[in-house]
Amino acid sequence: MKVFNFESVPLEDAGAGTAGVKIRWVIDAKTGAPNFAMRIFDFEPGGHTPKHTPAWEHEVFVLQGSGTAHTPEGDRPINTGDAVFVPGGEVHQFRNTSGGLLRIMCLIPMEKPEDTQVC
Amino acid sequence: MKVFNFESVPLEDAGAGTAGVKIRWVIDAKTGAPNFAMRIFDFEPGGHTPKHTPAWEHEVFVLQGSGTAHTPEGDRPINTGDAVFVPGGEVHQFRNTSGGLLRIMCLIPMEKPEDTQVC
Repeated sequence: MKVFNFESVPLEDAGAGTAGVKIRWVIDAKTGAPNFAMRIFDFEPGGHTPKHTPAWEHEVFVLQGSGTAHTPEGDRPINTGDAVFVPGGEVHQFRNTSGGLLRIMCLIPMEKPEDTQVC
Repeated sequence: MKVFNFESVPLEDAGAGTAGVKIRWVIDAKTGAPNFAMRIFDFEPGGHTPKHTPAWEHEVFVLQGSGTAHTPEGDRPINTGDAVFVPGGEVHQFRNTSGGLLRIMCLIPMEKPEDTQVC
């Protein structure tokens, strides 16, 4: 068993297409996970992921703050304590529309292209 | 996309071997998830899951409170903000040793026996 505070995991730039977003790979292959990865994203005010349409699902939980989730039907508000399920193949984007930190957990299956691992 | 507060999900008894523990199946097959399930467990003071050794991994995040995680080397403290990775095949048990609520998120792969879905 491995037990560690998530803040002990290095905070990295969340990559291409993101702005004002950092990522921690909290539990992934390096931890020993065989099936799915747990990441935590920190969005500064105005920060956002790109509109993207991966083939795999996202399982999201809003740990802190508020913002919006872009969906095919428009933007929806997200707030602390919300769960978000994004099925594979559906366009989406997360954005911090508040004046404070937006922190979300986002889990994805392991099998995916290495260059499109945003939430 | 589905967006909902986790508290809108029914709170159920966490099942055989648990004491003082309730579960919410936040994201699972009924939500449309194909690979892994997100559950949130509420432990009352003294509440615990059974010592068990499933073949699959658990990816855990402590949302609120404190307690212990039993490991083959003994009990370890867990606190708000801790991530816990339990590999498949390793005995474990979670317990609320505090005077308040212990709330943990626990994710597991979908493929598992229906009668041993505790954390």
